[in-house]
Amino acid sequence: MNPTIDLLKSHRSIRKFTDQAVSDELLREIVSAGQAAATSSNVQAVTVIQVNNPDTRDSMAELAGGQTWVKEAGAFTVWCADLRRSGAACASAGGQFEEGMTEHFLIATVDVGLAAQNAVIAAESMGLGICYIGGLRNNPAKVSELLALPDQVYPVFGLCLGYPAQDPDIKPRLSVDAVLMQDTYSENQFDKHFDDYNERLGHYYQTRTGGTKVSQWTDEMKKLVGKESRPHMRSFLDDKGFKMR
Amino acid sequence: MNPTIDLLKSHRSIRKFTDQAVSDELLREIVSAGQAAATSSNVQAVTVIQVNNPDTRDSMAELAGGQTWVKEAGAFTVWCADLRRSGAACASAGGQFEEGMTEHFLIATVDVGLAAQNAVIAAESMGLGICYIGGLRNNPAKVSELLALPDQVYPVFGLCLGYPAQDPDIKPRLSVDAVLMQDTYSENQFDKHFDDYNERLGHYYQTRTGGTKVSQWTDEMKKLVGKESRPHMRSFLDDKGFKMR
Repeated sequence: MNPTIDLLKSHRSIRKFTDQAVSDELLREIVSAGQAAATSSNVQAVTVIQVNNPDTRDSMAELAGGQTWVKEAGAFTVWCADLRRSGAACASAGGQFEEGMTEHFLIATVDVGLAAQNAVIAAESMGLGICYIGGLRNNPAKVSELLALPDQVYPVFGLCLGYPAQDPDIKPRLSVDAVLMQDTYSENQFDKHFDDYNERLGHYYQTRTGGTKVSQWTDEMKKLVGKESRPHMRSFLDDKGFKMR
Repeated sequence: MNPTIDLLKSHRSIRKFTDQAVSDELLREIVSAGQAAATSSNVQAVTVIQVNNPDTRDSMAELAGGQTWVKEAGAFTVWCADLRRSGAACASAGGQFEEGMTEHFLIATVDVGLAAQNAVIAAESMGLGICYIGGLRNNPAKVSELLALPDQVYPVFGLCLGYPAQDPDIKPRLSVDAVLMQDTYSENQFDKHFDDYNERLGHYYQTRTGGTKVSQWTDEMKKLVGKESRPHMRSFLDDKGFKMR
């Protein structure tokens, strides 16, 4: 419909980058565009930590399950949900931070999602490629230690940014009819959508991998939500002051 | 730096809309752009419910604390974190959904943030204005009932979309230096940033309201994180199957 929507729809994760650095000026502009996203009650509960130290980047690549692009990307950043700063602001106005509310956890986490995605669009509009690194949550306690994160701050994900050295295909998504519903939730069409998507995704994998990867979405979901996932998250968050009450 | 970044940085919430409808075709395009965002392990844990029923929109406007734009916007949508669909996909592949993982809750919530923000950028690029409605979480159980949301699905926020009938100023943000850090977390400069931002935000409120609203960010944060906020969220999520273990 327009070049911005074309840009949005052309997203794919990039995991190979050229040696070209991402300038400080550009990264600031990207983070600044991230800040322009909506934020719940203006809390701005986002802190971005750029990781420059090569040893730290090595450690994080390993913690994330051997994602070498964490150390190779032009820039690597960790996006943190941060209630520490608003808590300090509250204290400076004579208040006392109310620790552990689930709602506060939620608004901080959503704030990070909105800001990061704005930043990603800014980056991609400048010709950069990106890759979110949820794998940091494999060991969020170690990540927090490496970044000296205090209580009330947790790493939601990492984000690699850099100039692409690959041009992968765009991964197909579920049909828009599967995710956009009218007035009430309906699961009547689930089976139809699963069949359709299994077929399209299978075709994508075949084309992309020359047929070596054969996987269906339903099987992928079985692996993802059919078993425990990062069972340490709850106690980690609890330790960090996100008590979910 | 480029027109896309200009667009990102020109965001402000719109709460007055013209009577012009948002066409079905445009809304589908916007949601489709939302789907193009990155998604954790391809889970695509986002369901968007467009609310057309006028009575339901009236109820939601009221639940959200009298936000009349919920009923007046060209389109009103509710963005849900949805593990129901991936759970059904898991079941269709012979698996059994593992209920209540904090990590699954997190990836679904982050997925919604990324997709919604992509959709917002698509909408704004087409000349629409938007307003996120976190106020739906004032009574998420009632919202869930109105939308017939099953377990494993919860409403993260609403989103008004429509053609703007107002042109408000852009709200200033914290300095980029306050949110972008190098290698480790630092709160050394908090006081300086609070003073700076209180001043800029005060100027914005004065200009916008003719001096009737006098508020400092630190005071706003005292009101937001210095007291309990939506203490029902935890038990609501628990009831919906998000047990946070």
